[in-house]
Amino acid sequence: MTLEVVSRSRDGRARAGVLHTPHGSIPTPVFMPVGTQASVKTVSPDELEALGAKIILGNTYHLYLRPGHDLIERGGGLHRFMSWNRATLTDSGGYQVFSLGPLRKITERGVQFRSHIDGSKHLFTPERVMEIQMAIGADIAMCFDECAPYPCDHEYARESAAMTARWAERCLAAHDGGRQALFGIVQGSVYADLRRKSAADMVSLGFPGYGIGGLSVGEPKDVMYAMLDETIPCLPEDKPRYLMGVGSPDALLEGVARGIDMFDCVLPTRIARNGTVFTRKGRIIVRDAAYAEDFRPLDPGCDCYACQNFTRAYIRHLLKAGEVLGIRLTSIHNLRHLVRMMEEMRESIIDGSFDEYRKETWRVWYNN
Amino acid sequence: MTLEVVSRSRDGRARAGVLHTPHGSIPTPVFMPVGTQASVKTVSPDELEALGAKIILGNTYHLYLRPGHDLIERGGGLHRFMSWNRATLTDSGGYQVFSLGPLRKITERGVQFRSHIDGSKHLFTPERVMEIQMAIGADIAMCFDECAPYPCDHEYARESAAMTARWAERCLAAHDGGRQALFGIVQGSVYADLRRKSAADMVSLGFPGYGIGGLSVGEPKDVMYAMLDETIPCLPEDKPRYLMGVGSPDALLEGVARGIDMFDCVLPTRIARNGTVFTRKGRIIVRDAAYAEDFRPLDPGCDCYACQNFTRAYIRHLLKAGEVLGIRLTSIHNLRHLVRMMEEMRESIIDGSFDEYRKETWRVWYNN
Repeated sequence: MTLEVVSRSRDGRARAGVLHTPHGSIPTPVFMPVGTQASVKTVSPDELEALGAKIILGNTYHLYLRPGHDLIERGGGLHRFMSWNRATLTDSGGYQVFSLGPLRKITERGVQFRSHIDGSKHLFTPERVMEIQMAIGADIAMCFDECAPYPCDHEYARESAAMTARWAERCLAAHDGGRQALFGIVQGSVYADLRRKSAADMVSLGFPGYGIGGLSVGEPKDVMYAMLDETIPCLPEDKPRYLMGVGSPDALLEGVARGIDMFDCVLPTRIARNGTVFTRKGRIIVRDAAYAEDFRPLDPGCDCYACQNFTRAYIRHLLKAGEVLGIRLTSIHNLRHLVRMMEEMRESIIDGSFDEYRKETWRVWYNN
Repeated sequence: MTLEVVSRSRDGRARAGVLHTPHGSIPTPVFMPVGTQASVKTVSPDELEALGAKIILGNTYHLYLRPGHDLIERGGGLHRFMSWNRATLTDSGGYQVFSLGPLRKITERGVQFRSHIDGSKHLFTPERVMEIQMAIGADIAMCFDECAPYPCDHEYARESAAMTARWAERCLAAHDGGRQALFGIVQGSVYADLRRKSAADMVSLGFPGYGIGGLSVGEPKDVMYAMLDETIPCLPEDKPRYLMGVGSPDALLEGVARGIDMFDCVLPTRIARNGTVFTRKGRIIVRDAAYAEDFRPLDPGCDCYACQNFTRAYIRHLLKAGEVLGIRLTSIHNLRHLVRMMEEMRESIIDGSFDEYRKETWRVWYNN
């Protein structure tokens, strides 16, 4: 897997590129919709293609528990199982098992946890997680890491990042290095020295791409941006950088400005199911009574299926009436909004106007 | 609105035709998916088009309560509101308000009822229901009728059908007779004399089409078929006949055999949401463990989006995991199954093989 950088912003930090994968070439920067359980919630594969998604993410923890990585393997791997012919990435399950709180126990060996579905006991080790991700068969797998909580003291964060580095070595040893690319993950909480150390550890192992984890877990956004400023210069220029679990429009803009190539987040589909949609002027809650007789599209000018065919009034009615089509339409719209934003940022990097694009986008958000 | 009969089965009862509406010509016999709240549950208008739906039904009772017929009218009418450019039909709300049980009171004037949403008090009269349906603006409206319960004694059924006839006169007087066609509804419970009388009453009023209501409400199927045998000969040959609320494959087959042109039913989408799908060999419950590793389509040979792209194992996983895409796929498949069955029946009527089609279909159902 290689990242071909095709253009840069004036300050050289933001970059437009192409990520070559066994399932197609992906223009970067790119936003990856999340298909936790082998389905991007409410949206079909043909709709994902139509809205411009080039790569989607599956969650290893969820797929391992249900339907099981072995079943997916027998079904021909994730792409074939879910009928998605473009690229895929699976996370390591680290974030999910650490989120289980009292249901899990961390040791050097790995993480013991209980299923949120039936309470059954399981063990994730770096080796086991590699086995699971290889069976699922995404184009990109992620190393098993510990996502430290926020806040977290320097001592804990240091030891956690060190263990993540040791686990990364075990992941590399356990991974078959076939068509699936394995990315390392930089941790280090909100400590600049630990972020730099973690990045150096990962780079010394020589991965084809690097995730930046443990951010957007509760810390202020300027702290997240400061951590990116510390981490990114430590990563190689010719490898993709993936800011994990981040997907608010402002963070996409600021992440790209700092040199991030890939993002994923459940935010667009999660808020969609609550009736909130992105517009160029900021979010609106289309469930609100204010939109009951608003016969305009969710975002005038948007080219998605929802905006090309339906009004706020109709979509609000569907949401109020509990009709599934309502959350389908808001989900499609929100995903298209982020995918188009990435396309626009990429174009602006290529044509030299990224700084203006960034300034103008912030200006419109502030004035509305 | 006219029904052009293009062909008949050998016994002359089943007919293939074309129903001309302001929103397109509809090959008959036809199955109409139900979009109770201005949305066929989980399915989008473009998917309905792709699966061959030519006309869909909206429920007057539901649309009146939410979002309100006046809102739909301000939104440009039902077609524009829901972005469906093919034909539509609204029922009269009669069946729904009678189903409210203790929440409603029937008098000659109309039916007083309380909303199932907020308990608010409402009155449906024939005149009011015409006003509501004209505002919604479907291509076909239905007269306000009383759907007698089952079982129901001869005395009650006689008086009820007589009131339905008086209401039909009031509906005709209140309807503006514009582009929207108004169909009468034959009632009479399970009594042959009352069915013939009700049909004669309706025909004397001269509607452009006739619904047959009050069937499939709990009576045995052979009683329903006997009532069709009594009713249909009393209806004009050149007008469409619509068997209301009927949609099981066997009843579609037997209804068409007796001369029915139109059907609607929530059955295909309702059972889909419970994980049951139609196949050529009968129903299967794809949620069952038996299908966990079944990598065949729901119905091999089916041309729907679900069967062309996904396996039983994947759809079962989605249903078990509570993923909306699962019920979308089973809904699309079940609707396509019925729509295709109507297409096949129509072709067989035209090419003279309807009797064989009917026999063979029953044979396959019995042998599986």
